Amino acid sequence: MFTIHGMRASGNCYKLQCLLDMLGTPYRWVDVDSAHGATRTPAFLALNPNGKVPLLVLDDGRRLAESNAILCFLADGTPYLPADPWKRAVTLQWMFFEQYTHEPAVAVARFIRMWLPADHPRQAELPTLLDKGGKAFDVMEDALARDAFFSGGDFGVADIALYAYTHCAADGGFDLSRWPRVVAWLERVRAQPGFTPMLT
Amino acid sequence: MFTIHGMRASGNCYKLQCLLDMLGTPYRWVDVDSAHGATRTPAFLALNPNGKVPLLVLDDGRRLAESNAILCFLADGTPYLPADPWKRAVTLQWMFFEQYTHEPAVAVARFIRMWLPADHPRQAELPTLLDKGGKAFDVMEDALARDAFFSGGDFGVADIALYAYTHCAADGGFDLSRWPRVVAWLERVRAQPGFTPMLT
Repeated sequence: MFTIHGMRASGNCYKLQCLLDMLGTPYRWVDVDSAHGATRTPAFLALNPNGKVPLLVLDDGRRLAESNAILCFLADGTPYLPADPWKRAVTLQWMFFEQYTHEPAVAVARFIRMWLPADHPRQAELPTLLDKGGKAFDVMEDALARDAFFSGGDFGVADIALYAYTHCAADGGFDLSRWPRVVAWLERVRAQPGFTPMLT
Repeated sequence: MFTIHGMRASGNCYKLQCLLDMLGTPYRWVDVDSAHGATRTPAFLALNPNGKVPLLVLDDGRRLAESNAILCFLADGTPYLPADPWKRAVTLQWMFFEQYTHEPAVAVARFIRMWLPADHPRQAELPTLLDKGGKAFDVMEDALARDAFFSGGDFGVADIALYAYTHCAADGGFDLSRWPRVVAWLERVRAQPGFTPMLT
């Protein structure tokens, strides 16, 4: 059975819960409070030297880090990761976009507003993060004029990856009503069979 | 024939040149000076609304962004992307590590030192970037105690992705002699058949 080390309120960790519930795959969940240092302990660093959740552990002890790499591994051979080479490439394109352009703005704004004190110096990063995150949503809004979903046109792991922090972007101070196609896409993701919301 | 829009001195763009030269695949290269605004023109934004290079364009007009997604697309079915599901997962793990943890520190430090004036306010980011980049090299050094390469143990696209900005990390102020296994791995990458260095 798969074991996931993760924090329930982390979008990166929720991605795996979301996919595994859609697949109906049983798994063990080990809570790791990454917001309060639990990923920097010697015990956790022995599991993942990069000190991050989520982490997938197989029964034989093999370990895999990076939420989007885990999504692809779990979805391989299922309809959630296209077999067609071009559609698979487009799926990966959006997953790298999510980790490089979207998450470092949208998730970090949420982290600062939800977990740091109101007088923390990192609050000063918020205007820049709101600008960068808004540009990421612009790119998504543009793509949604042509396709209903991000995983090569169909629903799949790129949608799960992008849903994770887009659906809770208001926590970071974003007003998603500026991106109506993004709002409609969020509804389409929530309508997928087996969808379960993020626990917060 | 593949067309690559890119900037020669960009590590993200060099990744594609490196793989295509190893594969012996012919391609067209369109120079885009992203350091001086050429990715923000209306003409380029019509090609890639995210305003970034590299961009792959197929003969039929289809376009693919994100360097590591392009690497996987070009390497699919070749020895540079493992067919084994676990090795492929590990390869993707390192490619997401590269874009999320490594590149935003190592490449950005290089950009600030190489392209911004000495009195630019972003020079103040360098100490933080050197610390974060050093931690990324620590994680690579740890992994290289067990494996010779990052693409599921063998040489492949994860090595090309990580080589791109590691080999020129001195440009950003890193002293790679602190990570001897990383230095030895760079040499092993350079010894691969068909390897061509980055033009700077």
